[in-house]
Parts: sequence; C-alpha cells; structure tokens
Amino acid sequence: MVITLQQHIQPETLHQLKALLTLKQVNFSYLENRNLIVIEKSVDPSVLEGLDGIERIDLIASPYQLSSIKFKKETHFLVNGISIGSRFANLIAGPCSVESEKQIFETAEFLAKNGIRFIRGGAYKPRTSPYAFRGLGVDGLKILKEAATKYNLSVVTELMDLSLLDQLMEYSDIIQIGSRNMSNFYLLAELGKIDKPVMLKRGMSARISEWLLAADYILSGGNEKVILCERGVRSFDPEVRNLMDVAAIPMIQSLSHLPIIADPSHGTGSAKFVAPLALASMVAGANGLMVEIHPDPSKALSDSQQAMSFEAFENLLQDIRKLESAIQKPIDATYEAAQ
Amino acid sequence: MVITLQQHIQPETLHQLKALLTLKQVNFSYLENRNLIVIEKSVDPSVLEGLDGIERIDLIASPYQLSSIKFKKETHFLVNGISIGSRFANLIAGPCSVESEKQIFETAEFLAKNGIRFIRGGAYKPRTSPYAFRGLGVDGLKILKEAATKYNLSVVTELMDLSLLDQLMEYSDIIQIGSRNMSNFYLLAELGKIDKPVMLKRGMSARISEWLLAADYILSGGNEKVILCERGVRSFDPEVRNLMDVAAIPMIQSLSHLPIIADPSHGTGSAKFVAPLALASMVAGANGLMVEIHPDPSKALSDSQQAMSFEAFENLLQDIRKLESAIQKPIDATYEAAQ
Amino acid sequence: MVITLQQHIQPETLHQLKALLTLKQVNFSYLENRNLIVIEKSVDPSVLEGLDGIERIDLIASPYQLSSIKFKKETHFLVNGISIGSRFANLIAGPCSVESEKQIFETAEFLAKNGIRFIRGGAYKPRTSPYAFRGLGVDGLKILKEAATKYNLSVVTELMDLSLLDQLMEYSDIIQIGSRNMSNFYLLAELGKIDKPVMLKRGMSARISEWLLAADYILSGGNEKVILCERGVRSFDPEVRNLMDVAAIPMIQSLSHLPIIADPSHGTGSAKFVAPLALASMVAGANGLMVEIHPDPSKALSDSQQAMSFEAFENLLQDIRKLESAIQKPIDATYEAAQ
Amino acid sequence: MVITLQQHIQPETLHQLKALLTLKQVNFSYLENRNLIVIEKSVDPSVLEGLDGIERIDLIASPYQLSSIKFKKETHFLVNGISIGSRFANLIAGPCSVESEKQIFETAEFLAKNGIRFIRGGAYKPRTSPYAFRGLGVDGLKILKEAATKYNLSVVTELMDLSLLDQLMEYSDIIQIGSRNMSNFYLLAELGKIDKPVMLKRGMSARISEWLLAADYILSGGNEKVILCERGVRSFDPEVRNLMDVAAIPMIQSLSHLPIIADPSHGTGSAKFVAPLALASMVAGANGLMVEIHPDPSKALSDSQQAMSFEAFENLLQDIRKLESAIQKPIDATYEAAQ
Repeated sequence: MVITLQQHIQPETLHQLKALLTLKQVNFSYLENRNLIVIEKSVDPSVLEGLDGIERIDLIASPYQLSSIKFKKETHFLVNGISIGSRFANLIAGPCSVESEKQIFETAEFLAKNGIRFIRGGAYKPRTSPYAFRGLGVDGLKILKEAATKYNLSVVTELMDLSLLDQLMEYSDIIQIGSRNMSNFYLLAELGKIDKPVMLKRGMSARISEWLLAADYILSGGNEKVILCERGVRSFDPEVRNLMDVAAIPMIQSLSHLPIIADPSHGTGSAKFVAPLALASMVAGANGLMVEIHPDPSKALSDSQQAMSFEAFENLLQDIRKLESAIQKPIDATYEAAQ
Repeated sequence: MVITLQQHIQPETLHQLKALLTLKQVNFSYLENRNLIVIEKSVDPSVLEGLDGIERIDLIASPYQLSSIKFKKETHFLVNGISIGSRFANLIAGPCSVESEKQIFETAEFLAKNGIRFIRGGAYKPRTSPYAFRGLGVDGLKILKEAATKYNLSVVTELMDLSLLDQLMEYSDIIQIGSRNMSNFYLLAELGKIDKPVMLKRGMSARISEWLLAADYILSGGNEKVILCERGVRSFDPEVRNLMDVAAIPMIQSLSHLPIIADPSHGTGSAKFVAPLALASMVAGANGLMVEIHPDPSKALSDSQQAMSFEAFENLLQDIRKLESAIQKPIDATYEAAQ
Repeated sequence: MVITLQQHIQPETLHQLKALLTLKQVNFSYLENRNLIVIEKSVDPSVLEGLDGIERIDLIASPYQLSSIKFKKETHFLVNGISIGSRFANLIAGPCSVESEKQIFETAEFLAKNGIRFIRGGAYKPRTSPYAFRGLGVDGLKILKEAATKYNLSVVTELMDLSLLDQLMEYSDIIQIGSRNMSNFYLLAELGKIDKPVMLKRGMSARISEWLLAADYILSGGNEKVILCERGVRSFDPEVRNLMDVAAIPMIQSLSHLPIIADPSHGTGSAKFVAPLALASMVAGANGLMVEIHPDPSKALSDSQQAMSFEAFENLLQDIRKLESAIQKPIDATYEAAQ
Repeated sequence: MVITLQQHIQPETLHQLKALLTLKQVNFSYLENRNLIVIEKSVDPSVLEGLDGIERIDLIASPYQLSSIKFKKETHFLVNGISIGSRFANLIAGPCSVESEKQIFETAEFLAKNGIRFIRGGAYKPRTSPYAFRGLGVDGLKILKEAATKYNLSVVTELMDLSLLDQLMEYSDIIQIGSRNMSNFYLLAELGKIDKPVMLKRGMSARISEWLLAADYILSGGNEKVILCERGVRSFDPEVRNLMDVAAIPMIQSLSHLPIIADPSHGTGSAKFVAPLALASMVAGANGLMVEIHPDPSKALSDSQQAMSFEAFENLLQDIRKLESAIQKPIDATYEAAQ
C-alpha cells in the first residue's frame, strides 16, 4: 500500500499522519525523497479517512510496492539522449572485461559503425576464483570512458562495492549491479540516493518477487531510473552455465513498470546460443539486449566461450531487424537516424 | 560409438563380430531391428580393423548415441500426409482433457477452420491428486478419433501405462509420453517396438543428456519416429508453474537430429504468457508448438488457468504468421494449401 | 475432508449420501475398499448434518488426505514377523543389482549373521542409458527369493512396470517404487488394489505434498501398507549425485502417519558419505535405513561408487548401536533376540 | 598448485622465480601475506626444478587451493580462549535480530547459565523487503558487546558492507558473512587483510567448490581464521524455506581443513525441525551449531517462525549431551569446566 503525499505537505500534517499510523500500530516506511509512505501490509483505507495531506492511495497486494505496475504504469528515461524503456530496442554490447585500449577502441568503433549506442565492459570483475583475472580497475574505467567519448557511446559497467561508487559515478553512464549483488541490500539502499540509472541483474536463484523487492530498495531511496536485466538462473543441468528464463520478460512486464532487458550471453553461457535467445527475448517483449562481443573471442581473458565475434553480432543485428515489424521496437540507431 | 552393419550381413559374420567384441571385453548392445551395434564407451576403431560385415562406424562421444546428430543429420516423417520435423511449423492444439463430445467437436471445427492439422486432448490424465478428474478413458479416445476423422485432423494423446497401448494404437496418430513418464524406461523400450510416432516430453528436471538417452531407448528398439517436446522444468520460484527452457530448443538442434516442439502452455502454466513464449520458441528454432486451447477456459476440468481461448489462439496464429519470413517455417496449413 | 462411513452402511443410505453431495455440487471420491468418502476441498460439515451412515468426519486442509496425520495417528504392520514403522529401526541392505547367485548368497549370509532381516536387490533396473546393464529379470528375482528363504530374510525389490506385477507378487515381500515412478499415477492406483507393502521412494524433484499425494493414490485404493523412502533430490551442484533432504524425515513425521526410511546410498551417491548420513537420518527420526552393500564394490555392475563394503557396513551397524539410547529405536535384530 | 616459499626468501630469489613463471607463461598469484605462490592450473613441477627459494610444492587438482585438505590438514584457533574447529562442539545461539537491551541481556544470561560461550545477533539485517525491520545498527552492536562482556561470551554478528567493517572490528569477535554476500568477492578479499575470524555462510545456491573458492578469497589475503557454515540451500519446494544439505558437512570435511558448523534454524526455517537437524548435523560430523533462540519467539521482529524458545533449546542441549559419546565432541562448556 502506497500513500502518495500532497506535494507541499505541511510538516505538521505529515507529523499527524505518522502519529496516527503509529497509534494504530501500522508498520510503515516514510520515504522522504519520494514523498511517499509505504505500508507493507495494506491496512483498511478507512483508517486514513478524513486525514489531510494525502494525494492518492494505491492498494498493492504484492510485497513489492514501488516497482509494481499498480503504482506506476511505465518507466522510461533518457541516457545521453537515448530513450530507455520506451518503444525502442536498447542494445548494449561489448566485452566481458576491459583488457586493453586496443580491444576497447576497436569494439567502440565497431559498435558506432553499427549504430549501437551503449558499450559494456567490466573493469572490476566478480570472479569465482581469486586466482583468476580480476580486471584492470580504474584504468579499465578510463579506457572505457575515452572510447565512449570518442565514438559517442554510453558506458555500462559493474559496481562491485560501495567503496568504488565514486569511480563509477565519474566513468559510467549506467551502473550495473551483478547477479551476486542483487541481494546486497545495503548497497542497493545506497544506490537509491544517487542520480544515475542502475541496471539490476537478477540474482542467480532469485524469485521474481525478490527481484522486484530488490528494485524497491533502489526506488524507495529516490532513484527512479532502474532497469531490470534477466541473465539466466542456476540450473540442475551441469551442461549449461545458466538457464535463461525468457518467460520472466513478459511476467515482469505484467507486474512492473520497469524496463527489462535480456542478457543472452550469461543467460546461455555459450556463444552459439546467444543469437536464438536474443531473438526469442525480443519477441517475448524485452526492451533491449546486452550481448558480450569481443574482437577475438578465443583470446578473451574471461568468459571467452560466451563472447560473440563481430561478424556473428552483425548477423544477429540483421536478424533483429527482420523482426522489427513483429516486435514493433526499432533499435536505437534507427530511432536516432529518424530524428 | 555406433557400428552400422552391412544390410545383408551373414549370421556367421555377425556372430564373429560379436564374439570378437566379447573377447575384447567390450560392452556392446546389438540392436537387431536397427541392424546396429552400439558401444557405450567408444573403443579404438583399430580393434575392428579387417573385420567383415561393417558398413560404417560413427564415433560418438556423448552417452546418447542414436539420437545424436553425429549419427544422423535430420529426422522427418509424415503423419497423415503432414511432414513433421522438416521446414514447416507443426502446430498442435486442443484441450488439456477430453471433457465432452461438444467440447471436442467445437475445438476440432475451430482448428480445421484455422488450418491446424493436429488435435491434442487427454483421455487418461496424470493428476497429482487421486481425487481430481482423471479423464474419460477410452470414451475420451473415441470422441477424439471421431472428431479428428470428421475434420481431417491427426490425434495426439498421452499414453499413461503400457496396458493402455492397444487403445492408443487404435485411436491415436502420435503417442505422447508425459514428463512423469520420461524416465519410465520399461515403457520407452516397448515403444521402440511399435510403428507409431512418439512425442517424448522432457522430464520435470531432466538434463538434456538424460532426455536424449530416453529418446535412445525408443530409437534403439527400432522406432525412428521420435519428436521431443520442451515443456518447462521445475523451478525454485513458487509463483510459476514451470520454467520454460527456451535455450533447450537450439541446444537440442545442435546435438540431435530429432524434431523438437515447444509446449508453452505447460512451459509457463499461465494463459497470458503462452503467446510470447510460443513466439519466442519459434524464433529460437522450434519445429512446432503444442498449445492448450478450450472453448471456455474458465470451465476447463483441468489446467484451466493455462488454456487459451479460441480468440487468443487466433491472435497467436496471426502473430506467428508475421514471423514467418524470419523463422522460415510456414505453418502446416500454408504447406498443404500450396500442394 | 474424509468421511468415514459406518461399517455396515446400507446401500440405500450410501446412495442418499452420494446423491446429496452431488446435489450440492460437491466433488467427492467414494473409496469402496476403504469405506470412505474423500472430498478434496473441505465443505462446511453442516451440509452433512442429520445424515445417516456417517461414523466420523475429519477436516483435513492439505491436498493429501489419507496419508495425513489428521486422518490417522500411526501406521505399522508386520512383514514376515518384523514390525515396520513402530519403535524399531528397520534395516534393509543389499546390492544395487542382482548380478549372480554367488553375490546374493554371500550378501544374504552376511546380512543374516549381522541380524539384518531385509535384503534389497534390483532384478529390473531403471538405467538412464539403454546400453547399460538392465538387470537379470525374473532370474534375478528367483535368486533373491531363494537366498532370502535360506537365510530367513524378506525381499525388497523394485517394480518397474505393471506388466511385471505378477512376478513381484510372487518373489517380493515389499514392492519398491523407484523415484522415476513416483508420479506414475496409473501404476500407483493399481498398487492400491494389492495386499503387499509398497515402499514409495520420493521423486527426483518431488515436493513433500506431491509425495504424500502419491501415497494417497495407493492408500485410496485400499492398500494401507505404504512406507516412504527419502533418497535425495536433484541438486544444482554437479559434484553430488543427489542432495539428501534429511529434514524431510521429521517433516513427514509431523504431517503423516506413514513410516519413513532413509536411503543414504542414493541420497549421497558416494560410499564414503553413506555412514554419516545414515546416522544423521536415524537421529533425525527415520524409521529405518536402506543401504547398498556389495561383496566387492569395485566390481558392482551398477552404482559401484555408492556401494559400501561389508566391513564398512559392519562399522556403520556398530555406530548405529552407539546411538540406540539416543534414538530410542533398537534395530530389528535386537527386537527379535528379545522375543 | 601451491608453492610454499622459504621463510626468509631473498627478494632477488623471489624475483627470479616470478620471472621464470612469467617467461613460461604460467598464470600465477603471489600472496605476499602468506609467502605463497598459487598457480590455478597446476604445471609440471619439473618446470621449477633447480630453483631456489622453494620450501614445498603441493599439487592440488581442485580449483580451490588454500582451503583444500591437500594443502593443510586441519584448522583450529582460539576465540577468547575457546578452541574453534578442534574436538569440541562450538555452540552459538541468540536471536535473529538485536531488538532491545532486555532481550539481549536475558538471552546472554540464559546462555551463560547453560555453558554456551557464543552469542549471535544481527544489528544490520539483510531483509528481502526494504519496508521490513532492518536492525538497530551500531546501537545493536553496543548492546551485544555489553551483554557479552558481562556474561563472558563472544559475539558473532554479520557484516553487510565494507563500510561497516570498523564497527564490526570493534564490537564483534567473529564476523559473519551471510549467504547473500558469499559471492561478494570484493568484500571477501578485504576480509583477507584483517585479524579476526570470519564465519562464511554458504550462498543460497552455491556449489561446494564455489564455497571453498570464496574461502580461498579470504585465506589468500592472509587471514587463516575461516569457519564455514551450512545454512540450507534454495529448494524447489515452496513449503520449506531452505533445504539443509547435511551431506555437505562430511563432504567439506573430506575436501577441506576448515571447520564447518551447521545453522539448522535457517537450514529448515521452522523451529520444530531445528532440533532433529541440529542432532543430525552433529552426528554427521559438524564442528558446531548456530541456533536462533528468543525469549519470546512469537514476538521476534524477524524470523519468528524459526526461533526456538529457551526451553526448547535446553531440551536440545540435553539431547546433544546424550550423543556426546557417539559424536566424540563434548560441547564448549564441558571443555572449560574440565580445565
């Protein structure tokens, strides 16, 4: 249950409202930055009858509140002039890890040539083994930013720890929260206070409602620019890296106003299945895709088996364009060209 | 490892071959109906050098052998004149359970009108609860057959137990093996001996290799008409009935020559997500779809929440047709009309 | 909701009762062999007020009814003089597969010497691969029976298909239903009609409620001698064969009156972890154990990595005896010796 | 593969060693604080032949290295005079959340009276919902520390974010890393640099090898005081909160030298199943237990359904003592009393 307060509510009125809820033993959260009061378990609205300061009341039965479609119909916003979450397909591509200047500039040039407007790349890498390559750190972030500036791209890169937030605020346009951090609630709460879009990947075995509650952590702090990213869940089949939950795409869209993009690279873990799953995700309604590409996949320092070559990615783009009339979402480039 | 024997191999030659393998302590299976010898763990082919009676040797590293794409490139066959597993989309639709003559004849008429050539329906239902509706039995099979005959459709229906095989041989055109029977190896072995296509649904938590080994049970008996059907796997999320593994479609096609169709009705368990997942499956490369429809979904005696209305199914058909140029598989009806 | 009818209810009274339920549109199952009426979704008992022929009414909220502890407090019965499900630990041991007379007679002698009263062994084996050893069939059953007769043991062996039921009725004392058949509802319903104990293993990814509903299939047919067997569930960790759900033991005991035994051999898939999990299961309240042993584990034709040697099994027995005061369930042998 | 360097290796010798490995294109990690070189993929040891500065070489085939039992036989250390990981059962108990001074002091008094030496309690709580009680923060830590000081207990409490590490260093004796942070590799790496024991809970769907690699993150930084804690994994059964993997206990002990304790409170999610699973875990070989208790479970602000009452916990203690001869691990209190 969400109570939208009047825009210029008097401190005294607010105080009375909170006092009444406390008196009635209602467990509520007052979100100052959003001018909202959230009550986890809906109460009988008649409790609030006759009270001043209330603009609107939304009864929301799910545990997640602010990410619910019952609270808001649609979320879309601009990132460097490109509209996210609207009727265009947002395409993000790039390597798993930033490895060198050459690799990133080649990739950026390739993306720009193909009308892609977002480059991804990891500078701090969450690696299962402490003995594996963990990324170039801030040097990687600088390379990404330089290449992005040169080729007019926006940067999507992962935040691994709160202590790195300042770096990310400087070098990134969209902050990615990886699967392993989806339930890092302390971090999510802090991301609610920043003014930068956050792409929240689904946890390795997160239920839909847990994922939306994680989004609520960010939204409730005041940051409304949240993008969800389906990247496959843990499977019982050792032959696949992850099991991509394509149905989560229309399911999220029926439950939430947040844009959802698909990451078929992690979702399948295998370069040869990225294209069919990318197409499947778009047809199922995704707002966009994030795809791992590499100038020379066989030499990638991480996730080499799931990176597409440039050529394979160009074929995928062609296939996406064939579906444009069916999916009714032209890709970013098409949109820009039309302006 | 599969040894294809010469077509008219002499009994004596065969005997020598088998004796040699026994002597070398090789664990092998001689498949009389297929004129093949399968060796589960490949041996050094030089062991067989100079031996008579051998047509071809295929080294196949996977545990499944006859369903492997390394043994055979493609499987397609005709069911009442309709080609399964080739470059047309095979569409199967109908109710979860056969409930009445009226229901089935209405459905059959609707399907025929829309160019669909396969009707599904359960006469014996595997219900989790013994107190739930378990189907009309042989009466249900008779209704299905009559309606199919009148409207020139083929019948797809489930075999629950070997003791019912005779009934199925009479009333069914494709025998469906449900998820709960995918590992019923005794039953599968018997299905290897019949001359009727078998549609093998994936077990509730079956790995890809286990599924293909189940297919090998049927193939090794001599029945080469096997269709696989992805229908979702068990998930950790209680809010979804199943988690549809769309990636299994291209994965199967890279590993096996068997046709694979998708069942988004069970795969999602929710009527509103059937259409996006049906489209996603086709784009991902499925050879066809099996969809639950009902003249009045709210009154269905089983699985009512996942049955599509006729109207919703017609919308889905239109959406599939929009994708035809992309997926390059015209639906059955189109194919027939062109003949 | 279970309505226990009066023992000698008049056909007319029964008819009226059923007519009334039908009139009130109540969906019910009349179980002739049990003299019960089961109503899946409980109705207001006042509906039945003033009606004749009713002995007792049990309101049971769970989907499973006859296996619920709300219907019956405890189930125990004798198998060749040994009490199953009471305050003794029922120990079952033997090889995965019957391989030879020598192997079985050696095992039987060993078991008898150690006071074990149940021998297990598979004659028809559910093997994932059609090219693996599938058991000796009826010859295996005969060997088991002969050895059991000689050493005064009872036989526990698996039924793979209804067509083999006659053989099992002759050669087996307890019929085992394997994981892969737990949801073979047609088979379960037939087992409700026989007079022989059935040990129902948990399905590979069966929920507790699904398992108890499977038991209800047998119980509702009239066969009350059902034993449950926890044998591990499918895991996301490729390094383990199964994940043993030890908590299912006390959980079942809080929900059901049926005895539950543990199979740590399949539950762990690794001989070295069988002993700790066997002890853990007993301490958690199991009514007994089923353990795979083999005279020479390294030469077992199936599941060799999970079979214990005789020596290891003797050590386990000693460890179980150390726990006897804590678990308050002396093993079968102790019980017999005391008679 | 772990290369233990000589204790006082000359910088020059070390430099030569590293240069050679680089020359041979070996991917290695030099751990300064541990005086070790770890090579993820073992190389032929002859590569290192004749080189100075090497004390010992351990060939370790698993991806985890420093946590492997092939590197070290056993880990035990003292926390305020109590030995962790040796032949005593370490018992930790306390509420889910610190709620008030009264609650914590009552609990501490109760623990001390029963000879328990570790109190747990959350001051910063990882809650799935942002609208739920998130703990008292630093005030909660202070209450814990005061009560612990008064009753001679050690404090176990969770670290949610690196920014809170200073607080935890001051108020906690053992730092708990929760399931949701098990793959927070940046955090783990920082914990390698501190001198304080870390209890690393298993991630919600973490494989055994991933868990040990997470431990390697801490160990490789120089902190050797790591305790593992099994707390159940995500299940497909919506009726249970988690599925406790009791077999993980002996499995970890066969693979690693690290102590492992069991948390049957989270492991089962239900107070009534905590005792049987606690006993099962001890019998399976656990080095200790962590159990949630509360003076009045029904009023707990978080996880109320899994908290034991004081009375129930005393019963559990009695049951553990009955098993002492079998498990051969007297509880902490017994140990101290004997000094």
